Parts: sequence; C-alpha cells; structure tokens
Amino acid sequence: MRKKAISQSLIGRFADIVGEVNALTRAEDQIGFLREWRDRYTGATPVVLRPGSTDEVARILTLAHAESVAIVPQGGNTGLVGGQIPSDDSTEIVLSLGRLKTVRNVDTAGGTMIVEAGVTLAEAQTTAKSVGRIFPLSLASEGSAQIGGALATNAGGTAVLAYGNARSLTLGLEAVLADGRVWHGLRRLKKDNTGYDLRDLLIGSEGTLGVITAACLKLFPMPAERETAIVAFETPEAAMKLFRRAEAEAGQSLTAFEFWAHRAQEFALKYMPNVRDPFTDDYPWYVLIELSHGGKGTRIANTIEPLLTSAHGQGLIRDAAIARSLRQAEDFWRLRDAFSEAQKGAGGSIKHDISVPVARIPEFLQRAEKVVERVCPGARPVPFGHFGDGNLHYNVTQPESMDRAQYLALWDQMSDAIFELVTELGGSISAEHGIGLMKRDVLKRYKSEVELDMMRAIKKALDPKGILNPGKVL
Amino acid sequence: MRKKAISQSLIGRFADIVGEVNALTRAEDQIGFLREWRDRYTGATPVVLRPGSTDEVARILTLAHAESVAIVPQGGNTGLVGGQIPSDDSTEIVLSLGRLKTVRNVDTAGGTMIVEAGVTLAEAQTTAKSVGRIFPLSLASEGSAQIGGALATNAGGTAVLAYGNARSLTLGLEAVLADGRVWHGLRRLKKDNTGYDLRDLLIGSEGTLGVITAACLKLFPMPAERETAIVAFETPEAAMKLFRRAEAEAGQSLTAFEFWAHRAQEFALKYMPNVRDPFTDDYPWYVLIELSHGGKGTRIANTIEPLLTSAHGQGLIRDAAIARSLRQAEDFWRLRDAFSEAQKGAGGSIKHDISVPVARIPEFLQRAEKVVERVCPGARPVPFGHFGDGNLHYNVTQPESMDRAQYLALWDQMSDAIFELVTELGGSISAEHGIGLMKRDVLKRYKSEVELDMMRAIKKALDPKGILNPGKVL
Repeated sequence: MRKKAISQSLIGRFADIVGEVNALTRAEDQIGFLREWRDRYTGATPVVLRPGSTDEVARILTLAHAESVAIVPQGGNTGLVGGQIPSDDSTEIVLSLGRLKTVRNVDTAGGTMIVEAGVTLAEAQTTAKSVGRIFPLSLASEGSAQIGGALATNAGGTAVLAYGNARSLTLGLEAVLADGRVWHGLRRLKKDNTGYDLRDLLIGSEGTLGVITAACLKLFPMPAERETAIVAFETPEAAMKLFRRAEAEAGQSLTAFEFWAHRAQEFALKYMPNVRDPFTDDYPWYVLIELSHGGKGTRIANTIEPLLTSAHGQGLIRDAAIARSLRQAEDFWRLRDAFSEAQKGAGGSIKHDISVPVARIPEFLQRAEKVVERVCPGARPVPFGHFGDGNLHYNVTQPESMDRAQYLALWDQMSDAIFELVTELGGSISAEHGIGLMKRDVLKRYKSEVELDMMRAIKKALDPKGILNPGKVL
Repeated sequence: MRKKAISQSLIGRFADIVGEVNALTRAEDQIGFLREWRDRYTGATPVVLRPGSTDEVARILTLAHAESVAIVPQGGNTGLVGGQIPSDDSTEIVLSLGRLKTVRNVDTAGGTMIVEAGVTLAEAQTTAKSVGRIFPLSLASEGSAQIGGALATNAGGTAVLAYGNARSLTLGLEAVLADGRVWHGLRRLKKDNTGYDLRDLLIGSEGTLGVITAACLKLFPMPAERETAIVAFETPEAAMKLFRRAEAEAGQSLTAFEFWAHRAQEFALKYMPNVRDPFTDDYPWYVLIELSHGGKGTRIANTIEPLLTSAHGQGLIRDAAIARSLRQAEDFWRLRDAFSEAQKGAGGSIKHDISVPVARIPEFLQRAEKVVERVCPGARPVPFGHFGDGNLHYNVTQPESMDRAQYLALWDQMSDAIFELVTELGGSISAEHGIGLMKRDVLKRYKSEVELDMMRAIKKALDPKGILNPGKVL
C-alpha cells in the first residue's frame, strides 16, 4: 500500500476509540513497543493504540480500512523476526493487544479455556493449573509472550514433541478482519468439518490476515508421573540412537527430547545466574529427556532407569543424571532455558531457527560446522533445540577477537549458506519463529513461485487494501 | 460458473491426455463413478478421466481452466454428502484419482510415508504395517476410500481420539491448482513456519480449492500393548463418567471410546453376518473402550481391569467384557464397524453426522429423542459414534410401518430440527463427513456471513473461474 503520513486529526479519531490514556503518542511511552529485545529491529509510529475490548479493535480496523492506514498488531513484543515492529517512517500504527486480558471461560470437564489475546503464556499456564489441568505451550519468553502473538506466529517451544505447536493446541478463534468485521469462530469442538480451515490459516499468518482477539485453547490432564534426566553423549549420532530407543520404549510418554552442544552449556554457566552443571566432567553433546504420563496406572520410573542403564552399558551414552526431586528437575530445565539469553554475554550472534527431517540432524550439524568455518573462520556454533521435532536453533557466536559489528555484517552471508544446506536436506528456514521482516526476502528464494502466488492471492482476498502488517511475511 | 455443454472435440482433447482407455464415455463404464453407494446422489458426465500421473492431472486442469470446464475430483466414491458426484446435466467432467497408486517413499526411521492420492486407506495401513509402524486413519469404508478423498474431506474415523483426524496425520501435500500449476508441498518436517498454512486449507476443502495428488503422511509406533473391552451402561451419563475416569487413569493411553445405543447393536446382529453379541443380556447403551501404548515399559492390562472392576463395584456400569484374545478384539471392532451398513436392512434412515462439546452428549441425546418424536412419531433413533470426540452419527430409522419414500421426504424437516438443537448446544452440523452437496444450503443458515465471505474470498482467489467442484461446499 501507499506510504503516507497520518494526519493529527486522524490520530485523534483513533485515540477517541481507546481513550487518550490508551493512545500513546509520546516517545517515552512508546519505547517498549518500538524496539525488539535484541535491538535488531526498531521502528517509529505516530501512536500506539491499546484497545480494551474486541469491539474497540473492530472499530480501529474499521477506521483504518476506511482511511487506508497500516496497522501493526503486537502482543508481548517477544517475536524474533521483527514481525511486531512498525516501519521506521511513522506511517504505521501499532495495535497492542496487551489489555485484552480476560479469561472468558474455563471448562475443566470439557478440557478447554477461552482466553483473550493479551493473556501471557505464563498466565494461561497458571489458569490451567488452577483447575488441575495443563496448557502445555511453553517457551523461554512465556512470562511476556501473549496468546495472541503466540498464535499469530504459531509458536512452538519445548512441549511440541508431545502436544504439538500453537496450531495443534487451538480449537477456535475470535479475530477482527482487515475491514473491521469480527469473525466469531470460538468453537470448542474436537471435530468440525464445516468448510475451509480458517482457524489454521489465521494461526501463523503473523497478523497479515486478521487480528486474533481471543482463542479457545485445549487443556490436558496434569501428568501423574514425570521423570527428567540429562544425558551426555560423544556424538549427535549417539543422541539419535537414544531418541529412537526412547520412542520405542516409552511411546507417547516421551514428552521432551531437548538437545545442546557443550558450548551452549558453557555460556549458560558463565553468563547466567542460578545455573548448575549436572556433571563434574565436560562432554561434547547433551540431551534433556523427559518422560511423563497422564495416567495413574503406569510406571514411568520403570522405563527411564532401565533405558539409560542399558544405553550406558552399551557405551551409547557417556553419562546420565536423573532428577531425584522436583527441584532438581527444575534445575535441569533452568539450564535448558538459559541458552538463548546466555549467548548475549559471549558477543554477537547470528541466529537460525531451522528444521530438518529428524534423521538428518547429525548430517546437518557436521556439514553446518564446515559452512560456518568457510564463511567466518573462528566463529563458534552454539547449536541447541528441539531434537525430537528436527528443530535446531543453529546460532553462531562471533570469534572471540572479532569486532561485533563487523561480525554481524556477515549475517546474510552466513544465513544464506546455512539456508542452502537446510534446503538441500529438505528442511525449513523457519521452524518456529516465523518470517516477519527478517526472512521476508529470503523466503522468496526458497519458496516456489506457485506457493508464493497462493499466499499472495489469499492475502489479497482477505486484506485487499494491504493494511494488516504490511511488508511482513510477503 | 456458466453451465455449458462440452463439445465432442473438447472431450477428445481431454481423452488424449489420459489415453482412450482411461477416458470413460460409455454409460456402462461410468456407472461406478456417478452413483453414491446409498443412491442418494446420482449425476451424469460426458467423460470420466482416469489420469495416471500428477503431470496428467496438471494437463487436464490446464485445459479445463483454459476452456472453463468444471471438474469434479473423485477418490474411492465413499463420501456421504455427495461431494464426489457431478451434476446431472452432463456439464461436469469427473476426474478419478484412482490410478495414482504409487507409494513414493517410506521413511521408517523418520516416521513418514509419501503416497499418491489413489492409494486406499487399507493399502496405506498395510504399507505402514509392513515396516512395523501404523498409519492410524481408520474408518468403515477404508477398503475403498482413498487417501486423496480422505484428505480432501479431512476424514475422521475411530482413531481420532488418540491420533487426530486426516489433517493431523498429514505433513505435506502435492496438489494441482485450478489453473493446472502443481504445488509441490510434500514436506516431511514436523515443524515449518514459513508462511500461510496452505496444507490445512486444502485439506478439508472437498476438491474446491485444488486437487490433491499425493501426501506425506505420519507413521506411528505400533502399540506394544492393546486392551479392548465392551462395556454396558444404563445411561449416557454413566458412560460420560467412565470416560472421565478412563481419561484420568489411562491418560494418553486411552485410544478409543466408541459409543452406541442398543438399537444399533440390534440391527447389526439382525442384518449383518459374522457379528456377535458380547453379552447374554440386553442393555440400553454400550461403549467399546480401547487402551493402547507404544511403549514396552508400561502395563496397560493393569489399568483396564481395575478401572472396570471398580466402576462395576460402584454400580457405574452394568456389565463389561474384556477381549481375551486378538480375535475377540477383532470381533468387538467388527460389531462396532457394522452399525452404518446394518441400518440399510431396517428401512429408510435419515443421517446426521454431528458433534457437540463432549460434556453435552447426554443432554443432546435426551433432547434429540424428543425432537425426533415431534417430527415423526415412531421413528427410531440409532445413535452411535465417537463419544470421546463429541461426534455422534445420529441416524434415525423410519417407523416400522411407514413407507420408505414418505419417511425420507421428511429428511430436511428432521435435519433442520436436529441441527437447531446441535447449534443451540454449540455443536457442528458436520463433524467429519463434510458439506458437499448435502449440507451446502444448510451451511448458509448456520455459518455467519463473515465466515462465508472469508470462504468465498478464498475460493475466488484460488479458483477464479470456479471450475473446481462447483456447487459443492459454497
């Protein structure tokens, strides 16, 4: 759409909808909405609107549509690809969903809850826990990340192996369309085959097809039993073998299989507080394995011990630590959750959120290391991620002696080389973070023209004026 | 689109693509493609095309698009809502996918297989079994139903409780678009957040947005243990209580909870061969409960016995029969699978494939019985279905003395009354069979204008000439 300045009087009309106190125009009030936490994306806006209801969101979109004003929906501002940040020319209005915080309904027996977009993941988890259930969507930024943003980006996290990503956890949606009309799709049904799957189309569309204002989410039985262990390996191939064996022995009780390189742990121990090494020796690779089961009649503990003991006896694993208390299990998870932030301390980091077919992870790791060395000798890969989903955060920290800015200038060159390898292995250049601004141009190189055309046609059909998060994804 | 006769020369050009032997123009060759098995829908076509490759499908669509000819994709012709049957004026060409039968790839370690649209569900299951895995999509017509049709209609079946519907079982698609271009979306990834969810949009679109030619499907570990039982109840409320208890005790090991009324069983015993009554006495309601687990370390058998024993001790269940052999488990399932066809023997049947939130099943059953009695006194409800999904096949057999045609003339009146109740309870008028022709007009009454508009916009975006299965769904 045509870029144009937004007049003061028009800003006033938007402000009238939400009330002056919820229309932020001063720089000091806007700062938290214009800057992504790693400082990679910054923008400018004449006004941040903070509606308090779906109706206000609808009125904002109705006006924006009539006046052809671009709207950038924003949740907790934890996205990693710049999708939530406006352009820097002040031609886009930020629509913050953070005030939509009502838990509208919790149906314990039916295993569902309806929450508004601004409820954080942590709050959603707490709500579920308060009725003896779990909402399994879990990621490092869950204290700030909001349901609306998590669904708009189809967030993943550490429980995908057992419970699926945001899309799999959602039964119904309420969303405001580009023209301000409200789609009331808050279904609570496990099965509904009445027409096109609009729910899954909006989920993961990163605010370009509609603004999610509420969702009906699935709740699950609280695991009656849970066992957590950290296992050390000599090679990723050995981790793969244990993964296959755990799948066979534990079946659907295998609920996490998180993986990291020694360097990830080293950075966490060095730069993050309250993080402990589960072992006295160092090992090249680690996995956090979790078995859990909702049933009371099973004996998970009888699975993990023999699994690890026999793997150790056969030389498949170097060492293993089974959590002996809830607190120790929390320690294990704290270590795992520290990797992303810990890298900040070690200097500039070029990040990749990729996936490959699970069986190809070892090959990817081996070849990616050579790719990195070719692009920037001395750069330090810090791979970690969701092994069981084939999803690795293949982040690469700068060489120790190099200038940070100089290193980060290599971002595109490094990413292109990694994405080439990922594509050759049949993988994805964005497993769970989405496209946003960061990968918009890259996407054009890796998606077929047919698929891009389908996406463009759908975008045009649902947002003909192109006012919803322009310049993102497509 | 405009209805128009298809010229002989144009038919010849279509026939040239597939070869004369695969272009069926004689009435006796076409009959199996123009008639739905319950004889509710019949159509006429100048030619049934049976392409042998994706490329031939693409060439057919390219020509159809250029010449604005309507195409009706068809799989195993087992659909229950008329979606696969052409109109009766010979203006639509039937595109049968049955010759696309190649299993392109089986990745046992990765847990995926790529099969073409014409592979039947039974063949897909057998392929999975041959490598020690399972493909869980299972329904009564699985010997004829094909993958392409099952995905196009987002089929459900008896394993949805544990494994989800067709959509949940699919990783990637290959499809031919309305203009003949091929979308190569056969991904094998567990996670991929690169753009809109086109896969799930095509799945369940009933051939109106594209023609699925192949799919990458998920394989699952073969259950190491399985326990099957049939349980008898006095009321649906008691069945609900056992369902909740089974969820709590067995967790994710509860893999089937199928439900039926005494009348369904009575018809099956009367009209179907090789069906046995598991009990000596009659009871009002029954459930087939299955627990299974992929892990070797669990003891499912230790769950089902105490669960049923304690429920019996508390008077929650009237009787229970646990299968003592694989053969007995098969007998139990044969009984369950006989209900749909058995109704044919008892006269005319008005069928509803509905869902409600699980907790509301007892209320639905109680109120629906009154609805039936009001519309047609003496008509006999034969409810059965997937209790754990909230999905019932609420079929109603004619009064014993009534004329069949006279009874079936009440179809719309009966359905309207049932759908009204379903809607009041927050349910769906089509849980797993889709919309097709049968529910196209009804859909307009139960979906909001906003949602219908979104669907129409997407249809127009992906099939601007409206040549794909016109008159179906929308």
